Amino acid sequence: MAPNDLMQRLQASAGQFEEDLKEWLRIPSISSDPARIQETHAAGQWVAEKLRGGGLAVEMIETAGHPLIFASTPPVPGAPIALVYGHYDVQPVEPLDQWISGPFDPQVRDGNIYARGATDDKGQVLTHIESVLAWLATGEPLPIQIKFLIEGEEEVGSANLENLLASMAERLACDVVVISDSSQYAAGQPAITYGLRGIATFQVRIDGPKQDLHSGSFGGAVTNPAIALCQMISAAIDANGQVQIPGFYDACRPLSDLERGQLAELPGTDAEFAASIGVPALGGDQRFTALERRWSRPTFEVNGLTSGHQGDGVKTIVPATASAKISFRLVPDQDPQQISDAFEAFFNQVLPAGVRLTFTRDHAAPGMLSRLDSPFMTAASQAIEQAFGTAPVMIREGGSIPIVTQFQQVLDADCLLLGWGLNDDNAHSPNEKFCLADFHKGIAASACLWAEIGKVSKSS
Amino acid sequence: MAPNDLMQRLQASAGQFEEDLKEWLRIPSISSDPARIQETHAAGQWVAEKLRGGGLAVEMIETAGHPLIFASTPPVPGAPIALVYGHYDVQPVEPLDQWISGPFDPQVRDGNIYARGATDDKGQVLTHIESVLAWLATGEPLPIQIKFLIEGEEEVGSANLENLLASMAERLACDVVVISDSSQYAAGQPAITYGLRGIATFQVRIDGPKQDLHSGSFGGAVTNPAIALCQMISAAIDANGQVQIPGFYDACRPLSDLERGQLAELPGTDAEFAASIGVPALGGDQRFTALERRWSRPTFEVNGLTSGHQGDGVKTIVPATASAKISFRLVPDQDPQQISDAFEAFFNQVLPAGVRLTFTRDHAAPGMLSRLDSPFMTAASQAIEQAFGTAPVMIREGGSIPIVTQFQQVLDADCLLLGWGLNDDNAHSPNEKFCLADFHKGIAASACLWAEIGKVSKSS
Repeated sequence: MAPNDLMQRLQASAGQFEEDLKEWLRIPSISSDPARIQETHAAGQWVAEKLRGGGLAVEMIETAGHPLIFASTPPVPGAPIALVYGHYDVQPVEPLDQWISGPFDPQVRDGNIYARGATDDKGQVLTHIESVLAWLATGEPLPIQIKFLIEGEEEVGSANLENLLASMAERLACDVVVISDSSQYAAGQPAITYGLRGIATFQVRIDGPKQDLHSGSFGGAVTNPAIALCQMISAAIDANGQVQIPGFYDACRPLSDLERGQLAELPGTDAEFAASIGVPALGGDQRFTALERRWSRPTFEVNGLTSGHQGDGVKTIVPATASAKISFRLVPDQDPQQISDAFEAFFNQVLPAGVRLTFTRDHAAPGMLSRLDSPFMTAASQAIEQAFGTAPVMIREGGSIPIVTQFQQVLDADCLLLGWGLNDDNAHSPNEKFCLADFHKGIAASACLWAEIGKVSKSS
Repeated sequence: MAPNDLMQRLQASAGQFEEDLKEWLRIPSISSDPARIQETHAAGQWVAEKLRGGGLAVEMIETAGHPLIFASTPPVPGAPIALVYGHYDVQPVEPLDQWISGPFDPQVRDGNIYARGATDDKGQVLTHIESVLAWLATGEPLPIQIKFLIEGEEEVGSANLENLLASMAERLACDVVVISDSSQYAAGQPAITYGLRGIATFQVRIDGPKQDLHSGSFGGAVTNPAIALCQMISAAIDANGQVQIPGFYDACRPLSDLERGQLAELPGTDAEFAASIGVPALGGDQRFTALERRWSRPTFEVNGLTSGHQGDGVKTIVPATASAKISFRLVPDQDPQQISDAFEAFFNQVLPAGVRLTFTRDHAAPGMLSRLDSPFMTAASQAIEQAFGTAPVMIREGGSIPIVTQFQQVLDADCLLLGWGLNDDNAHSPNEKFCLADFHKGIAASACLWAEIGKVSKSS
């Protein structure tokens, strides 16, 4: 438990925390926009100055792109080390005309602060910075060493950080990684995300005749690339949503009874979920619940199809080519490389005569599962309950955050994904927001977290 | 046999025939181009004047679009009546920079005349006009009555002619329809086309979630419309090219042994055909030869696919929608309406749960087969052999010419498709051409045709 006077200090500083957040949000750090290179850099400078002003040792580490901000509190011998990861860059803001207030003019309405980056990720990572600075300002020593790694390229793929990570392993050495860049399960129901799915993405192209052919003069004697592609995709996944690629499911770690029970207890029905996305019925492998399918089972998805005539009306051709964007979500312990090999072999096997296959692999990353019995998980759960007044539920997330898996692998550390946001925060959309009450609860939970981690013995 | 002095007259007039053709080709009668309405009309006027100048009774019949030219020689009691159909409109000329000489500046190179409309169809229909005018100029009576119907909207679908056809049945009454708007089997090998495939076209749309969904957060619990579409298409046609729609093949008239034998004797190998279109192997139902598949078997083709992300790179979504353009080629005696009904019922039956189907029918027309034992077929064969020095082969064509089926139905007349062109004439492409030697042989064959048809008794 953090000292009582720290909690009082957090309450007294609430206004200042909001002013800090607004100041940071005003900097339009759109990392994908070449016209915003200086502003993105400035957002990094802002957080570096903030940390330095609080007494931390800060380095700006240059990369091929936007710099990394690394900062650290003093070592605490015998205590665990926590690494806070976050990012100071934000998504683009188009379509601008859909914003009620300007994306870089933070405004408070109905208890929410509206601005690009409010929840993703400036508002969330700032909770940890404020908790540490507030703690240091009490004069009491922090119970653990806390490091910060705040990057400026999360929204453009983190390629430069990924490349540098192994070389920074010693500097980043830690026992637990703390990331607040996700959501609670629902308003009033905080959550810890202990699992992420991995990903593997592909582009597939089927080439037939050297040019589009007249379907009357040639049709019937030529393998149609569009039909061939449909047949190959259909061979890969059956009507029950079962992927037919040999070995695809072999390495999937099954859900434990504990996990199935936890998922079953989460509020929300399939009918509500179907209605929220506008479908007449849900799809997929009916041996699993919808939540189990979204969080713990791998998928085969077609993300795009392109072939032949796409305009109005009719054009009676055998198209020369057809292509698909395909992606898998993977789960522990599926190996992306092995699964990609199996997929490529399968598609070569089911390729009809008369057409050629070009199979291109894009990016891939494995899934992630934190140990539910990790003492850091317990520490986080208690810290959240202390600050939010409600114990967090343990959830997984169907999406993929490749850098998290890399942290686990390179740093051999547990990862705590502690989202203070909400699913309707409009991250990546117009009118991004963050609930200010959750911002302050997040700061308190962070302060409590350092105390709870301090109780974990270094050897666990 | 046409009178000897007619053949001499045709030879003497060869230069004039070419001048006539060039004059007509210089009129840019692009029926699809609103800027060319007057020129298209002028090309109709040109042929009307040509026929009137030769002594025929000519009418220009106004339509909602470009006018029909109708002309007739005097009735010959007791003799059959022939109706020549053709068109004075031409295809667009883009890309202009690929033409060696201007599309409306006819030039002769290597024995070919190059211009838009040279083979499709001004050059070909003019053979019949010149033969009739030359015959009339001898002072000898024509052995049969010959009518001409030359339209200006063939390249835009003949909709106005189709609408008027039934009301013109009496005026167009005939025993045989003669159309030269196709090709010989190969250079030096004339052909009579006695069969055409029909067509039915569709647009199919599969709708899933109300918007594209994040494939991580939602994938696995939602039916993917792109996958659903692939599975439905794959259910409709198997790996052997066999269409799986119930009843699809029931009404297909089988090839007679005579026809199979005729097709088997045509020159050309499957390997040459595959090489010409650039495929590693041919496709389709291997119980039939490639020519049999192209000319006498129905097809299921996907003409276009559209879904989700089509740009560069990766976008990991479950797309909200997927759509396909699908068309069949049909053969006698498949009924387009019945086949379309069966297809719609089948697609509704194989529609996966969780998505919605919008099934739209476009146009449809049945296939056509002329009687191989028709005396007019024999007459045409003899006329062609007399003029070309080679007996024609009997071929079918995989494409569809809906107006031909309508002539058969409305006029209850045999159809003779006598193509003087070649497959490499670049109809619809830059550098359209027509071999001048074939132009003159076509005029001679046409003159012989009137004589041969005159020998056919009216009752046959």
